[in-house]
Amino acid sequence: MSPDPIVLVRPVLPALEKLRAALDEVLRSGVLTNDGSRVRAFEALLSARLGIPELAVCGSGTTAIQLACNALRLDGEVIVPAAAFPAVSQGVWHARCTPVTVDVDPSFLTLCPEAAQAAITERTTGILAVHTFGCPADIDALWTVARNAGVPLIFDAATCWGITYRDRPLLSYGDVSTLSLHSMKLTHSVEGGAVMSTVREVADAVRRLRNFGVGVEGAWTAGTNARMSELHAAVGAVVLGEADNEIRRRIRVRDWYLEGLRHLEWIQPVPFRPGAWPNVASMAVRLTPDGPVNAPALCAELMRYGIHARAYFTGRYRPRGLATAGPTPVADELGTRIVCLPFWGGLKENDVLRVVDAIDRIGTRRTLAVGLARRRALP
Amino acid sequence: MSPDPIVLVRPVLPALEKLRAALDEVLRSGVLTNDGSRVRAFEALLSARLGIPELAVCGSGTTAIQLACNALRLDGEVIVPAAAFPAVSQGVWHARCTPVTVDVDPSFLTLCPEAAQAAITERTTGILAVHTFGCPADIDALWTVARNAGVPLIFDAATCWGITYRDRPLLSYGDVSTLSLHSMKLTHSVEGGAVMSTVREVADAVRRLRNFGVGVEGAWTAGTNARMSELHAAVGAVVLGEADNEIRRRIRVRDWYLEGLRHLEWIQPVPFRPGAWPNVASMAVRLTPDGPVNAPALCAELMRYGIHARAYFTGRYRPRGLATAGPTPVADELGTRIVCLPFWGGLKENDVLRVVDAIDRIGTRRTLAVGLARRRALP
Repeated sequence: MSPDPIVLVRPVLPALEKLRAALDEVLRSGVLTNDGSRVRAFEALLSARLGIPELAVCGSGTTAIQLACNALRLDGEVIVPAAAFPAVSQGVWHARCTPVTVDVDPSFLTLCPEAAQAAITERTTGILAVHTFGCPADIDALWTVARNAGVPLIFDAATCWGITYRDRPLLSYGDVSTLSLHSMKLTHSVEGGAVMSTVREVADAVRRLRNFGVGVEGAWTAGTNARMSELHAAVGAVVLGEADNEIRRRIRVRDWYLEGLRHLEWIQPVPFRPGAWPNVASMAVRLTPDGPVNAPALCAELMRYGIHARAYFTGRYRPRGLATAGPTPVADELGTRIVCLPFWGGLKENDVLRVVDAIDRIGTRRTLAVGLARRRALP
Repeated sequence: MSPDPIVLVRPVLPALEKLRAALDEVLRSGVLTNDGSRVRAFEALLSARLGIPELAVCGSGTTAIQLACNALRLDGEVIVPAAAFPAVSQGVWHARCTPVTVDVDPSFLTLCPEAAQAAITERTTGILAVHTFGCPADIDALWTVARNAGVPLIFDAATCWGITYRDRPLLSYGDVSTLSLHSMKLTHSVEGGAVMSTVREVADAVRRLRNFGVGVEGAWTAGTNARMSELHAAVGAVVLGEADNEIRRRIRVRDWYLEGLRHLEWIQPVPFRPGAWPNVASMAVRLTPDGPVNAPALCAELMRYGIHARAYFTGRYRPRGLATAGPTPVADELGTRIVCLPFWGGLKENDVLRVVDAIDRIGTRRTLAVGLARRRALP
């Protein structure tokens, strides 16, 4: 009998009675969407928890990027990292800007400031860096690049709930920061996203854009329907109550992984930038180039053990046909090197041991197979 | 004591126990979104009810337009009616096409085929007509224009659930048709939309586009997150069970309006195209140019009676800064002439009488005021 599958992420779900009560209240009110009281309450809750007054929620982390670009009135090239989830360039594209990919840092996987600097042209209208797998981008260096170019600096902080950097929420950096509240994130509203800003005008513009851009003088072309429903906001408020527990659980899960992976030389956790803590976004690992298996192959083999892992920078998730400012050798290489292992607070120590054990077996079997093939080739 | 307000639309909500049970099942499953089994089941349900095999749901009626354009690979000008809800041009714009507005028919308010024909250029990549307030566009004439130009014909049928035209669902016309499942529509999934097509490739492309465009060879740039959540799909399936009852209720409400408005000469229901039935999308009326009040003023005055009406073609809802193929005198005039009155199945005869009575009072008072002003001006 094969054991239960270990999925990549399972949504945080508080006690069903609490969720039921919240949903029931929405149904009884008869107001199911349209920027109602629960969306406003959820915004206030997120805002208070982060200490960021200018925050507006929306339908998804992808539309958060789109709305951020449109709220900032960007209308040219936007520099984005070449190794990123497709939503990053797609949000920019649907905002009718041109995403231009540049290479990333080989260690932290975040947008390379030197490459970004080299990609600046007179058409550059913004820089969108990603806190990749929760690791802060090189904020200081990117800030200098953006300020010298006179363009806003946006951080896609999709996975960064609960992470602090230099004693401030990582979500509070940049001119604008975007968050995902998708059900696979540490805290979520089923589907959802948010835009955080340092200025009121941006949050107000996002609120207007998400509701067809309507306002006294007419409707903005860049408007759309990117509202969060009252049902989703109600779930979000309840789930948020579990966030601190989920952070604690993920810290523990991470420790089990670090302990388990320690003796495997060909697989290393992707480092977290000093000053950032805790690393609760994902369990990203890097495979050494001379190791027994590459990222897509490891994912495929783990699936045979009922373990879901994902190589985000290659295959199905690799954006096609984007403009690029030049070669991106680091990002190209990462496609075969980076894997995200199952990571969520509900994992038990035994689950983590199963994942580590499967990785060990796959590596050992592959190493042996190579050795045997060599031996067979001898006279 | 002022009476209860009469809102424009109240969402159809089936018995709470049914909704609770459906939501509970989703919560227990632990799968809250990501194109799960409830989304697929809801798609199958809609598909079966309409007799349209190629149907894909998505996050909203606005994104349905966006996804339809991207699924058809449109990349130039798209002809749209100058009198339309902002979502129409916004969906086209976010698909990175250029909406070009042309005038509408003065009687049925739908896209004028002659004006569309005159607006065809070598950059035209599609025609997007709207079944305005549920009234079928001039399908035959537009079909000829589209076929002669060699571009697809798309119908925004956002409000058209339950309407048949020439004994077929109105949603089944055109190369592609889009539906809104927003909570203010006859049947809904809180927020939601759908794309119907005559070919499988379009529905498959919509399913891929809504999920970041991921596929074996990589992710399409035009992808986004436009999924319907499992919670919303579960609500949609239950609400759909109420649709036929809601149609019957709306037919009755409409009859009360027609009876009540019959004696007012300055306000007339917008006609429905022969061959279409029943007119259950909205209660749109036209004010005569020489009548006592125009559309925005009537809405403002009705609000003083606690009655919510809306002039969709002007003010807050008028899209700004769109390209136009030429003058649009009819659409411009409609802004001051067309009003949607409260319309939903839960309205009682007494509510409708209150609306009609308020309209009558407003008209009479204004007429008297004009007469008195004239008299004061005499020597």
